[in-house]
Order: sequence, then C-alpha cells, then structure tokens
Amino acid sequence: MGERYFQHTFPNGLTLLGEQMPGMQSAAMTLMLPAGSSTDPVDRLGSATVLSDLVLRGAGPRDSRQLTDYLDSLGLQRGSGVGIHHTRFSCAALADRVLEGMPVYADIVRRAHLPPTGFDAARDLALQALAGLDDDPRQKLLIKLREWHFPSPFGRSSMGKKDNLEKLTVELCKADYGRRYHAKESILAIAGNIDFERVKDEVARNFGDWNGSSDVPLEVMPPPGNFHHEKQDSEQTHIGIAYPSIPETHADYYTLRLALEVLSGGMSGRLFTEIREKRALVYNVWAGYSSLKGSGSILGYAGTSNDRAQATLDTFIAELHRFVEGVTADELSRAKIGLKASIIMSGESTSARAGAIAHDFFMRGRIRTVDEMKNAIDEVTLDRVNAYLKSNKPGPFTIVTVGPKELKTP
Amino acid sequence: MGERYFQHTFPNGLTLLGEQMPGMQSAAMTLMLPAGSSTDPVDRLGSATVLSDLVLRGAGPRDSRQLTDYLDSLGLQRGSGVGIHHTRFSCAALADRVLEGMPVYADIVRRAHLPPTGFDAARDLALQALAGLDDDPRQKLLIKLREWHFPSPFGRSSMGKKDNLEKLTVELCKADYGRRYHAKESILAIAGNIDFERVKDEVARNFGDWNGSSDVPLEVMPPPGNFHHEKQDSEQTHIGIAYPSIPETHADYYTLRLALEVLSGGMSGRLFTEIREKRALVYNVWAGYSSLKGSGSILGYAGTSNDRAQATLDTFIAELHRFVEGVTADELSRAKIGLKASIIMSGESTSARAGAIAHDFFMRGRIRTVDEMKNAIDEVTLDRVNAYLKSNKPGPFTIVTVGPKELKTP
Repeated sequence: MGERYFQHTFPNGLTLLGEQMPGMQSAAMTLMLPAGSSTDPVDRLGSATVLSDLVLRGAGPRDSRQLTDYLDSLGLQRGSGVGIHHTRFSCAALADRVLEGMPVYADIVRRAHLPPTGFDAARDLALQALAGLDDDPRQKLLIKLREWHFPSPFGRSSMGKKDNLEKLTVELCKADYGRRYHAKESILAIAGNIDFERVKDEVARNFGDWNGSSDVPLEVMPPPGNFHHEKQDSEQTHIGIAYPSIPETHADYYTLRLALEVLSGGMSGRLFTEIREKRALVYNVWAGYSSLKGSGSILGYAGTSNDRAQATLDTFIAELHRFVEGVTADELSRAKIGLKASIIMSGESTSARAGAIAHDFFMRGRIRTVDEMKNAIDEVTLDRVNAYLKSNKPGPFTIVTVGPKELKTP
Repeated sequence: MGERYFQHTFPNGLTLLGEQMPGMQSAAMTLMLPAGSSTDPVDRLGSATVLSDLVLRGAGPRDSRQLTDYLDSLGLQRGSGVGIHHTRFSCAALADRVLEGMPVYADIVRRAHLPPTGFDAARDLALQALAGLDDDPRQKLLIKLREWHFPSPFGRSSMGKKDNLEKLTVELCKADYGRRYHAKESILAIAGNIDFERVKDEVARNFGDWNGSSDVPLEVMPPPGNFHHEKQDSEQTHIGIAYPSIPETHADYYTLRLALEVLSGGMSGRLFTEIREKRALVYNVWAGYSSLKGSGSILGYAGTSNDRAQATLDTFIAELHRFVEGVTADELSRAKIGLKASIIMSGESTSARAGAIAHDFFMRGRIRTVDEMKNAIDEVTLDRVNAYLKSNKPGPFTIVTVGPKELKTP
C-alpha cells in the first residue's frame, strides 16, 4: 500500500482508513455503520432510515438544536443516508474542522438521546417521503427494479413500508440503536489534508472504547425476478432491466467494467448512440454495475414517451444481446480513457475518495490506490474483453416497467 | 488580481478567463455563448435548447459519430445546457486533454453541420423532455415560479413550448446559429493545471478570427407576479415563493447572502429548523439567491403533503417576515463559517471554479478571487446585517403552487 494510504482495525472491530491528498486544504469523513435496510427487522422496514434521522436530534451533552448549531459552526457540509448494507454519515470541511467534529459523531453513534418528539418528526418525514414517491415514477421504478431483482433482504428499499413505519415506536428505535450501532464492522474513512497519526489518536480517543457486538443474522431468499409491471397513469414509461454478473472481487471485474463503458460510458456509448442519438427514442438511458457484498449485477434504465416504450425496450435488449459479438479496439480504447479519466477526476475530491476507500474496504477488505485501479484497467486486452463477452451472455433478465401500459417482454 | 488569475478580451469580443489551481492534474473549461432562453425568438421558444443539441451532431471535419467518439477518446467529461442568458458547453479532464479538445469546441460553435436528421432527433428529444414535466411536479413548479416572477423574457423556461417546438425547422435553426453563436460577449473560462500563455495561444488560434456580431435587442415586459395555482392531481403540494432583491454588484450583496444563510444555510438554518425539524411539515425546504444581470431575487421552495400545505406556506411566509427582527450574533457567525466553507470547498474543484469565474465575469465584468470573497464575508458586521434586514422588508411576493388544491395566500 502506498505511503499515502492507511488502514487500521481497532480491537473492538472498527476499521479506520485514511488517504492523504497533497494540495488539498479540506478533508472528508465517511462513517459507515452495519445498519442498512437489509438488517431492518422484517416487520419494521424503514427503521434504519428513521433512526438515521433520530440520532441527529440530540446526542451527548447537546440537544437537537445545539448539535446542529455546533456542527454548522464548524462549517461541516454534511450528509447521511441508508443503503443496503450500511447507514452512512459523512462530512467535509477544512481538515482541522473535520477532526474537531469527530467527538460529535461519536456522540451521535454512541450517546444519542432518541427523544420521543424527535421520533414523531423523523417518522412523519419518512412517511411523507414515501407518499411523495407517487410523484416520482422514475425513482419508483428504480426501487421496484431492486425489489424484483435482488435476493431478499438485499432488494429492500431503505424508505420502508407505510404500515411498517406506522407500527414503529421510539422504544423499538432505542432497541434497534443498541442492536445495530456498534463498532464491529463499522468503517471510518477520512481523506484529504490529514496527518494519519493525529487522526488515529483522535479516533482511538473517541471510538476506541465503543462496544463491539455480534452480527445480525440474515435469512436470504431468492428474488421474484422475471417481469413486473406497475400501472401508473404517467406521461412517460419508465423501464428497468437487471441481470446477474460477477462480484467486484472477480479477476474479470475491470474486463466487465470496460465492456459496460462501451455500452453506456461517455456519449459515444452504444445505448446513448443507438437509442437516444440515432433513434431519439428516449430522453435518458443508461446501464451500470451495481454491487452487493459478494455479488454483482447490471442495472439499466430508460425513460421514454409511452408510444415509444416498446421500441425502446426492444432496442435496449437487442443492444445487450449484441454484446456477445464483442467490442472493437476503438471502443475499448475510449472505454479505458473514459474510466481512467473518471478515476483521476474523483481523485481530486476528498468526499469522493473517502467514500471510495470505505466502499473498497467493505467489498474487498482493503483499500485500492488510484494507481492500482489505473494499472488494472491498462492490463485488460481486447481479446480478454471479447472472450469474456462471448462466454457471459446477458441474462436472465428482470424487467420492471412503470407506466400506463404493460409491454411485451422477450 | 492575484497572479493565479487571468483575463483577456480578444478584439472580436470573446473574453478568456483563467485560474491556475496548484496541486490539480485536471482542468475544466466552460464556454458560454449569448444564446440563452431570453434571446429565443418570441414565437420559437426552446430554439436555444434544440440548437445546443444539434451543434453536437457533426462539426468541422467530423460527422456526429466521429465527433462524439473523438471527444470521448480524450476522456472529456462533458455537459451542456441552456440558461436565461447563455448556452453553456463545459468539459473536464486531464489538463492537456482539455487543450486538445479546444479545436473541436471551435468547430462546434463555428462550423457545425446542423444536419436535418440530427434536427429531427434533437427536436423530438426536446418535445419528450417537455412532456415528461407532468411526471415531475417539483420541476414544473420551479419553471412556473420563474415565469411568474421574472420580467419577460427572463422568466422563460429553456425547455420551450410545445407548439413553438413543433413549428421549428432546420432552416430556422441555421439562421439562429448565425445570429446567436458568435464571439461578441462569449466567455471561455478555464481552471486547473494550466499555463496561461499556452491557453491564450490555443484560444487565439481557434477562436481569434471568429466573427463578432451585434447584440440581439430584447423587449422587457413586467412579470405577471402575484399568485398562481397550477392544478395537478399529485400526492404532494409544491410551493414556490419569490420576491425581488439587490443585484450581485450591490455593496450589500454579502450582507444579504449571510442573512439568507441564516434563513436557509446548513442544517441550523431557520427554515430547515422551524419547518422541517420542529414541525415535520415538509420533506424539502429552502430559499436562495438567484441573479439576472443587473437584478437579484430570492427564490424559495417547499414540497409537502397536501394536508400540510397551508401550514407550510403560512410558516414559510412568517419566517420571511421575522427577518425584520434581525439575526443573532451566533447565527451570523455560523453563516460566515458556512458560506466561507462552501467557497473553500468549491475552490478544490476545477469545474466549480471554471463555472464561477465565467459567472463572475458576466455579472461583474471581472473575476473575484477566493480570497476576495472570504474577505468580503469577514467584513460584514451584525449591525450591518440587522440594519439591512430592518430597512428591506421581504416582498412583494410571487407565490406559485402546484397541487390538487389552491391555498390561501397572504
């Protein structure tokens, strides 16, 4: 590992990751806890989302208002969110301010007040977000696609379900906090203008005696898969396509990523060229890689007017099948340049790098350096891509549509 | 101007702006042409948008496919868009690649092919985007708010109108290209790992003999203003509030910006705290500064469930009126830190800086350095903010709502 990268796992199971970025004044922190939608209790979907709001409403010596005021007084630009595997809290600011904020993040994940009034507000907001989905058919489609494609509980939406949220209580949230907010398997990543020894001391002081805990067992069930139509009286039809692929840790990961770049990277990507530029079938179309721990999938999306929906779906599927014929040397060359360019550009953002090293560690158990990724891309040959595509036909497809009319599926 | 900043206007009226950013490998370019929605012909609204797509479909020695392939082979991450005053093309990549791409951008704005088949596709996509608005009530609200608040033609949506787009022809686009794509009042800004002399030579070679041209005269008409309800059978009600304010060039610009930061900056902002955190009335609420050349406005938005819409509007208006009572020293201190932090963070992004210096030049005729902005913020006193708020009561309000039911307006 280069001298700019650091990795340390504390005895309680918390892993600290760091990347020094010369030339930056800022630093960004990402703290990931093993509290994703996949570990929501089966009858209380949406718990992690409500909890991720509630823990910010007072913690340690500060009530809700004081906590928000204090973090703003450090100039921290903050975010939080719930994914399949984790609840994530992130912030970015001048590097020293991020370190000053660390004791508050320790309060949030260890000593949150979880007040009943805060719970009511947090749950109300979660219910409103869910109701607002009907005004956003594109987001609704992407949620349904994951639900139908991924094995349960990995296809769940972090937004939860209405009746589940209505049954939630502040006592259940408190129990959930004890169960899922713990050091074991948590990841704290920091990137930017940092001194690793100082960061390590600060993390040890604030999180070193945080309790570990046991894993939450998961019962994995196969996904419904196949085809699903969600009737909605909308102006556009939204189409989602998914099929299984290799995990990130596979030796052919960059072989696949480069093939996907030919399909949907940049503006010369095949989907964009064939579906949008040549035939003007859709306003927005893409396909990309999506990973769970230990498995990977291709997810694709197209949003189109209702009368062009069938032609769009047919063309999309035809483009996927055309993959077995391989890609050209020019296409691969552009794909390599495009993928490397986006890696280099994200190497100039402290927030992007903090998120990337945290993701890497979770998926692979280690950090990849920017140079390592660039080299892995350079090593992929045209023969390798085409051999891979020949022996890995796309499918079986999960196809989900949201719109007024059902489509004919292949 | 610091030695890291450069500004040069060529004899044909094109202005080149530069910012050297030490420690970066990348560069970003923004090219702004005086072809915004405000100069669309009055019966062909949406022209600039169709044209901004069409010019990318072949230019100079390359046809549509070759052009896209070539720009992708340089690894350029690209964007384009039409605003009120300008059509904007932007790209970012390793610094040398951005310079290599410059001759292509010269082809695009000077020697576009404007092929009839490309026109059909570009117009179809514009019509589809317009039809899709009904699936996106939030975006619809923001478009309507600008339409009702700003003087015509500055309140126009760049998406145009259906019947106008249907009347558009490739011949009209060609005439429009000659009329609005020219050197005079165009701005080319580049930020990142650049050598200014080299950039200037490259721009002189590619754009130096580009023709200037005359301005397009505008007939400015007062906005409809007041209150407007757009009935839509949606799950949420979307509320927009706007009122006039000072232009960016005003001596009290940062006085106002800091007051707005107290209202809606960070998570301790009054709107977020009062409407979202305490009362859980809305999922999303904000207010911000919006500028036209020579004037400024405050625009605000709230999206809420239909049964809470009236309470949300009332609370929003009450918070705006509370402004006359002034802000506290703590609030101002947090506002200063927050605003400076966001300036410093955007100072680490080549794309953000290229866009910022181009915007500065258009609005003020010169670049502001990051240090100048920080100093201007530091100089604002509590007395000055409170004196400003006392003598500048919010209003008169333009209020637009999208949702199933009309609201009671103040």
